Amino acid sequence: MLEWGSRDKLVIGPNYLDYFKDMENIPNHLSKIDGQLGKLIILGFPFEELAKNASFEEMIFLFLHNHLPNKHELDNVTKKLLSYRYLDGKILNVLKNAAENDIELIEGVRIGVSCLTMDMRSHRIDREGINGALKIIASVPIITASYWRLINNQPIVDPHFELGHAANYLYMLTGSEPTLEDTKTLEIYLNTVIEHGLNASTFAARVVMSTRSDFVSAVTAAIGAMKGVLHGGAPGPVLDMLREMQESGDVEGYLRHKFENRERLMGFGHRVYRVKDPRATLLSQVSADVWKRREDKAFWALAVDVETTALRLLKEYKPNRRIQTNVEYYTALVLHGLKLPADLFTPTFTVSRVVGWLAHCFEQLELDRIIRPSSVYTGPSQQKWCPIEQR
Amino acid sequence: MLEWGSRDKLVIGPNYLDYFKDMENIPNHLSKIDGQLGKLIILGFPFEELAKNASFEEMIFLFLHNHLPNKHELDNVTKKLLSYRYLDGKILNVLKNAAENDIELIEGVRIGVSCLTMDMRSHRIDREGINGALKIIASVPIITASYWRLINNQPIVDPHFELGHAANYLYMLTGSEPTLEDTKTLEIYLNTVIEHGLNASTFAARVVMSTRSDFVSAVTAAIGAMKGVLHGGAPGPVLDMLREMQESGDVEGYLRHKFENRERLMGFGHRVYRVKDPRATLLSQVSADVWKRREDKAFWALAVDVETTALRLLKEYKPNRRIQTNVEYYTALVLHGLKLPADLFTPTFTVSRVVGWLAHCFEQLELDRIIRPSSVYTGPSQQKWCPIEQR
Repeated sequence: MLEWGSRDKLVIGPNYLDYFKDMENIPNHLSKIDGQLGKLIILGFPFEELAKNASFEEMIFLFLHNHLPNKHELDNVTKKLLSYRYLDGKILNVLKNAAENDIELIEGVRIGVSCLTMDMRSHRIDREGINGALKIIASVPIITASYWRLINNQPIVDPHFELGHAANYLYMLTGSEPTLEDTKTLEIYLNTVIEHGLNASTFAARVVMSTRSDFVSAVTAAIGAMKGVLHGGAPGPVLDMLREMQESGDVEGYLRHKFENRERLMGFGHRVYRVKDPRATLLSQVSADVWKRREDKAFWALAVDVETTALRLLKEYKPNRRIQTNVEYYTALVLHGLKLPADLFTPTFTVSRVVGWLAHCFEQLELDRIIRPSSVYTGPSQQKWCPIEQR
Repeated sequence: MLEWGSRDKLVIGPNYLDYFKDMENIPNHLSKIDGQLGKLIILGFPFEELAKNASFEEMIFLFLHNHLPNKHELDNVTKKLLSYRYLDGKILNVLKNAAENDIELIEGVRIGVSCLTMDMRSHRIDREGINGALKIIASVPIITASYWRLINNQPIVDPHFELGHAANYLYMLTGSEPTLEDTKTLEIYLNTVIEHGLNASTFAARVVMSTRSDFVSAVTAAIGAMKGVLHGGAPGPVLDMLREMQESGDVEGYLRHKFENRERLMGFGHRVYRVKDPRATLLSQVSADVWKRREDKAFWALAVDVETTALRLLKEYKPNRRIQTNVEYYTALVLHGLKLPADLFTPTFTVSRVVGWLAHCFEQLELDRIIRPSSVYTGPSQQKWCPIEQR
């Protein structure tokens, strides 16, 4: 068992010190993605075992300490997270200003997280250690839920200190205690998307950390990357697309129109996985479970119809490519099944992925090598200065 | 001549679309670094021609439009920058909060820039176009000078609308109009460090932008990388080291102690340049010029002594390596010669480099490919879930 605040150092072989010469071989001790076989290993575990069994607090401990906690360690990390479960008045003021300016949810979260330095300075929380990491992890759901309520003209809900990390997030969003089933659904989702190699947001965090910067700067950068539609911003458009099909009433016609106009189909295909993303497989089961509990099942029936039809048409229009339903598709179904509106999809992804980012920040600090790729100059040549009168 | 707000599109060959497969070959149309010959080309110009001749406003136009402005175009960009020369009340409030919490200068700048989304939303400035870029460029010196005065308990100085970008920055820092010589010195410095390939801060901006995020997110990420001591945070420690030697009174003894204890010598060596960094050569002349104008020349004499002694001892201790005085060394001399305190070194670097970042953001938007390197898994294998009672 570790002393509080300490962590096992990674064992870094000498060859890794050369990694910045070869940007395709950056070491990563957190996840192994096998895109050919469709397997995802997290810190040595098949991710499904962790996703189904662990509480989110156990995942947080695992990511920060590289092993599962015993009872005493889990108590410690849980208490520490509870002690950080508050919204600092200075951050609240900034969020109120942002809300008055109609700043969208994920931007407000980025701005709020960016200001955490103030909170951490005034509460004397070390900015590059375990406590700093836990403060940021504890803050993302609180900032998200508080800002979401601000922009929806609802009073902010105070944190609930009897609830776990995931349940408290739902509580602060809705103002009522979530059911055990909904909490479990959210935890499986959070555990599933907590880490996925050097995706753009994680890589942004590592590039920032590589100059010996700080955790708040790295996580703020990562949220900036996360919000782009090519990364964490994808599940929202999946829901938009499903709603458009619901309104049109003609799923096959809508999809054929997309294919024939070579438009991008949201929710299908992944850059890394050649077979089905194993996270999509798990979240497919989870989304079926959550919609079993809902009385309004029309949307679920539509989503099943869309998936079946889209996969059939993909075989027809792109017979040589094995495109599968992706994790964004089921993310939209799971989170919509939990009655979260679409603007909460990317911030909820962030509530989870911030843990992966911080584990990568620790790894980057220990490697202590700046990430600075070379590039190929493609600009003009042989320009000569000439005074403005001659231009 | 271009319509206001438009810009020439880059010509991107089809092979560049594959660049994300090879992270060493990311295209960059802005600067070509020849580390063997010690040459730096900026948009086709030998950088010295631009650094010595251009106003900073001309550099801004060049970076955003890829060609030097004619008189009309320069008037337009200057007017637009002047129209953005204000500190929004919401940003001011955030900076006041940060100052009350003893947040250091560069962190305050990062937080202030992060909040620019609010200013841009309320003033209806487009967030991913020329106007958004100019708003950010106009704001960095204003946020820096205002926050610097706040943390030094001095009243904020209102912008001066008769001065250029560089002169107004000095004016807002000091409260008095700078001499023409000091303004020219600062402009040459700003022009010299405006762009340097895929350094860590620029790369962070591009990774964030690669998800189709926005300029404020990308620049905030870049400032986060900039503040690390392995990147933009380096010139401050150069000044600290020079002051330690000044106090010790024994330059050679101090340096020999460093070498014999294998401590890092600030201000010498560069990862890319094998010969002298050409920016260092130019800033060496500039620092000599600025110190000629100062009456207290003791510090300058010390700096010359330190450089001569360090280069002699480097030949003795590391005879096989050709280590040269680097750009951080002369940056410290130039900015200290302009009477800027050390905590302003990194933010002043940022006042310039933000222009390079935004030009890279435009390039990244036009390439429109996510930056997501693969990695090598170095973590544990074959872990099995076990319940907490058995751990």
